[in-house]
Amino acid sequence: TLLHSALIGFINGVQSCWTPSTFYCFQDVHVMIFVGFGFLMTFLQRYGFSSVGFNFLIAAFSLQWATLMQGFFHGMHHGKIHVGVTSMINADFCTGSVLISFGAVLGKTSPVQLLVMAIFEVTLFAVNEFILLTILGANDAGGSMTIHTFGAYFGLVVTRVLYRPNLDKSKHRNSSVYHSDLFAMIGTIYLWMFWPSFNSAITNYGDPQHRTAMNTYYSLASCTLATFAFSALVNPEGKLDMVHIQNAALAGGVAVGTAGEMMLTPFGSMIVGFLAGTISVLGYKYLTPVLESKLKIQDTCGIHNLHGMPGVLGAVVGAVTSALASPAVYGNGLQRVFADGEPGEWNAQSRGGFQAISLVVTLGMALIGGLVTGFILKLPIYGAPPDTHCFEDGLYWEVPGEEEGHHELNEVATPNETEKLNS
Amino acid sequence: TLLHSALIGFINGVQSCWTPSTFYCFQDVHVMIFVGFGFLMTFLQRYGFSSVGFNFLIAAFSLQWATLMQGFFHGMHHGKIHVGVTSMINADFCTGSVLISFGAVLGKTSPVQLLVMAIFEVTLFAVNEFILLTILGANDAGGSMTIHTFGAYFGLVVTRVLYRPNLDKSKHRNSSVYHSDLFAMIGTIYLWMFWPSFNSAITNYGDPQHRTAMNTYYSLASCTLATFAFSALVNPEGKLDMVHIQNAALAGGVAVGTAGEMMLTPFGSMIVGFLAGTISVLGYKYLTPVLESKLKIQDTCGIHNLHGMPGVLGAVVGAVTSALASPAVYGNGLQRVFADGEPGEWNAQSRGGFQAISLVVTLGMALIGGLVTGFILKLPIYGAPPDTHCFEDGLYWEVPGEEEGHHELNEVATPNETEKLNS
Amino acid sequence: TLLHSALIGFINGVQSCWTPSTFYCFQDVHVMIFVGFGFLMTFLQRYGFSSVGFNFLIAAFSLQWATLMQGFFHGMHHGKIHVGVTSMINADFCTGSVLISFGAVLGKTSPVQLLVMAIFEVTLFAVNEFILLTILGANDAGGSMTIHTFGAYFGLVVTRVLYRPNLDKSKHRNSSVYHSDLFAMIGTIYLWMFWPSFNSAITNYGDPQHRTAMNTYYSLASCTLATFAFSALVNPEGKLDMVHIQNAALAGGVAVGTAGEMMLTPFGSMIVGFLAGTISVLGYKYLTPVLESKLKIQDTCGIHNLHGMPGVLGAVVGAVTSALASPAVYGNGLQRVFADGEPGEWNAQSRGGFQAISLVVTLGMALIGGLVTGFILKLPIYGAPPDTHCFEDGLYWEVPGEEEGHHELNEVATPNETEKLNS
Repeated sequence: TLLHSALIGFINGVQSCWTPSTFYCFQDVHVMIFVGFGFLMTFLQRYGFSSVGFNFLIAAFSLQWATLMQGFFHGMHHGKIHVGVTSMINADFCTGSVLISFGAVLGKTSPVQLLVMAIFEVTLFAVNEFILLTILGANDAGGSMTIHTFGAYFGLVVTRVLYRPNLDKSKHRNSSVYHSDLFAMIGTIYLWMFWPSFNSAITNYGDPQHRTAMNTYYSLASCTLATFAFSALVNPEGKLDMVHIQNAALAGGVAVGTAGEMMLTPFGSMIVGFLAGTISVLGYKYLTPVLESKLKIQDTCGIHNLHGMPGVLGAVVGAVTSALASPAVYGNGLQRVFADGEPGEWNAQSRGGFQAISLVVTLGMALIGGLVTGFILKLPIYGAPPDTHCFEDGLYWEVPGEEEGHHELNEVATPNETEKLNS
Repeated sequence: TLLHSALIGFINGVQSCWTPSTFYCFQDVHVMIFVGFGFLMTFLQRYGFSSVGFNFLIAAFSLQWATLMQGFFHGMHHGKIHVGVTSMINADFCTGSVLISFGAVLGKTSPVQLLVMAIFEVTLFAVNEFILLTILGANDAGGSMTIHTFGAYFGLVVTRVLYRPNLDKSKHRNSSVYHSDLFAMIGTIYLWMFWPSFNSAITNYGDPQHRTAMNTYYSLASCTLATFAFSALVNPEGKLDMVHIQNAALAGGVAVGTAGEMMLTPFGSMIVGFLAGTISVLGYKYLTPVLESKLKIQDTCGIHNLHGMPGVLGAVVGAVTSALASPAVYGNGLQRVFADGEPGEWNAQSRGGFQAISLVVTLGMALIGGLVTGFILKLPIYGAPPDTHCFEDGLYWEVPGEEEGHHELNEVATPNETEKLNS
Repeated sequence: TLLHSALIGFINGVQSCWTPSTFYCFQDVHVMIFVGFGFLMTFLQRYGFSSVGFNFLIAAFSLQWATLMQGFFHGMHHGKIHVGVTSMINADFCTGSVLISFGAVLGKTSPVQLLVMAIFEVTLFAVNEFILLTILGANDAGGSMTIHTFGAYFGLVVTRVLYRPNLDKSKHRNSSVYHSDLFAMIGTIYLWMFWPSFNSAITNYGDPQHRTAMNTYYSLASCTLATFAFSALVNPEGKLDMVHIQNAALAGGVAVGTAGEMMLTPFGSMIVGFLAGTISVLGYKYLTPVLESKLKIQDTCGIHNLHGMPGVLGAVVGAVTSALASPAVYGNGLQRVFADGEPGEWNAQSRGGFQAISLVVTLGMALIGGLVTGFILKLPIYGAPPDTHCFEDGLYWEVPGEEEGHHELNEVATPNETEKLNS
């Protein structure tokens, strides 16, 4: 009957905590989820409808399911689920983790498979989040662990279980064209810009929120420079690769997701961002091909490079920064950042230890959860695309012709153009 | 001399009411008007310049005219028009209604016709808004009636009067191509994301604003699921249709425009959103073709499905929810939602009745106003496009060639590509 | 050792001044810098990756360098640089000026040249800003002088020094295609919408901020109408030109950058916006070709029309409005707008004079700075593109094929389409 009363509470709706600062952060996070993730994945030449459309579908589904699951695990008051701006932000965060996993299986799954994956992943996300934030008292405002590490390794295990040996039959479609890369940049830029809002959305108002936004901003700026530099360095002709710019430039936001609200300092954030951008580019260049050929992990968007490794880096940075935190540096602000930062009771080493344990728990939950979910998704009942038709919108969408536009042009073509066409 | 002193007041400029919360809501609404509406209409293959460009033109014009008209009817203080963030939001709302009507006549009208339509529609919008909000004391914060129902039926009558029997001569251009559908999704997603800001922009600060944002959010999430489900269900092959996703997924925001600030509850919002998405998809599939063939209503964007029916649904939901409102449920908040919610004087049935009357007034104003405006627009003096050149940018814009890009590629083509091209 | 302690201060990070209103203005400004400028320049048919990518690179670099330079010149407290939301906004402003100059040399410079340009331009920007705001006590909240005039004339001199007599070898690529113009409109619309936030971001909270946002809004609305009108008027067939709509419609925001926080009144703002739009369109039509043929200034984006002339107009409007300011009009608000607006000490003519001097200083700094920087950039060590490969992504980017998409379509083509293709 707890579930029942929770549902009743949800149905009645209890509202509170309205502040402009949380609401505009919510809108920024919302933009990242729907525009950022949605358009980031439109880089595939014939999978734009599905990228932005399925992103839309599973996000709209996940945020509802997340409101119930997160409410059930840690949003209950007197048997009712409290909803409000904070629950909306948290639901978007949980959705983000599902969309990360979506990136690994992009182009190889049916919408029904994605919805089933969301059901399991959201539920496990809420459990993991409950263990980390409530039981272990961990700090993870920007979700390096709960969102990025969890979503990435969950998705990687799922795509491993769903391994397709004959995927190269669709290989010619598993790449971008000129315009699709520009659409993808819309996603990248929006994710990049609003990441300060993302990481600071549920931090404490005032100094902690301010610090989180700034640390994220400096980390991203530095990460972007590292990305451009290494993208050119690893290319034999010194050319830049859009895959790196679209993805690795964002790793700096992932890597300060845990420590962002701590006294990382601008210079510290920049170092973290630089490291994140570097390992992300190197991952795309050298690690992803190995993962596919040796470990049979077909990771369409390279989420291991954007969310996996930078997420783990963020967790480690968070653990180290916690272990170094002291009242001497934070003053009265210690308690505003760390739940157990009460004067006289503060034990930095212990806090750092709990942060490290949180990473291990997250990895465990992601691996086991992904394994189980992967086998469930492998059942041949969801209308998954055949190996010959992966990365192709036409299977699930009414796709208009591409050429029409050019033909029509002639009707109002200038004399000059008509001449050219006739000759 | 009232007009004169109003203009003087406008010229002098009186400012007040600056709060962060209203200003960021204004910016979100602004995004919906210029990016949301503008890109939503770029789905046509050869009408992208006009869609986003004319949207830009008539929006920039309408918001100025609306500031004067709305100021004249209900923003006067001591003979001067008060301007400020609130007047800017209200002007954007009024502009939204013109852009809805634009959707019905999209591709079949000249920019001059659109500006003339805006002059009349803005004026009537201000009159209707004055009757509803000031005389009848109606609630309509998100504008299910004032914006959506009014704009939709006004536009439908205009397009009926401007009926073109030979429009099929341009039929081959009245459709999308792959990239134009992706541009349109930019519009859809922005409208979807910021609708909570839209509906809550002029509600009372605190609980009513919070509740409006949440009800809108849940309604849209549920509406999106209904849209995907019914889009696949009504297709013989089970494929999704971009027209539905781009439009019907937004109907949930329209349908809670009146009742959003009331105690609709999350579950109630979801039911409303589900209904809105369903009738919208069914409308696109079954009703629009009938409207065109039987009633001679050529509705380019299908505004009847996105704004017309969901707007009426929203008005009805608002009337019913008002009629059920009681101090027992709202407590002290009743007066913050309903202007006549004073303790001891509250009469829910009467309030519900006035809401219903408001819908009737709105429909009447829209039908008569659209009829008159339509006949004015039919005068052959505005440079309307011929039947053979509808849905075509080339008539009003300097259009660059489409093919150039491909030819240029060769100059720096890699050896591999050059080989392919030579063979 | 001042530099040393400044760096230490930066490394330690001092935070303050967190308010929701400054933070959401920051996010809006951020959108203008990364999406606005980035996509505005994607109009070139084969330079989209570089436009949005190099914009990303030099913006991420400039904001870091600007934080140090601006901090060094006017953000020091006790030998440390104060960083926070305000410094983030100011760094974005400085970045904006570099991106304006980028517009002049777009397509003709290597990324290394752009970074070197940014190093010099950011430094000089900080010096000029220090002279104007701190020494001369000038008002320039929206940066008509510090950002637009400075960035425009700096960039124009740089492109003059880098004059390429044989640029017509790349002429066929120095134009848009249909889709690239739509991508550019994304940039235009975002710049247009968020300009009220831009101009008001660092004004005083309350009335001055409110007034700035409104003046900018009215100026832009009026400017847009002027742009459409004159774009059609100067075309022999009465057709609209996308170049004008994309650029000139924004000149109204530039032109109220100085006077926006003053009592310009809505009507005054509209006059300024109308003038700005008019001179901008006329500049694109008649002046730009002359600048290129007679003065050898190759201005790719036409920044002289969007930022140069409207920036000077804005400076003049600011000087005149200051010279007319009086306690009778501003009441107690005079001191909130003008730093030297203390009762009894206010001298409007003197203020107007200092504003005029500020413009002269800015022009001088821009011309000399641009000259020196231009010659530094002319050194043949930065990998600048040859005349035959300007406006071409392929030199610096791994560019995917364009045609792939069309071929793939056939594989899942409907019977109808296949038939058409076979015949």
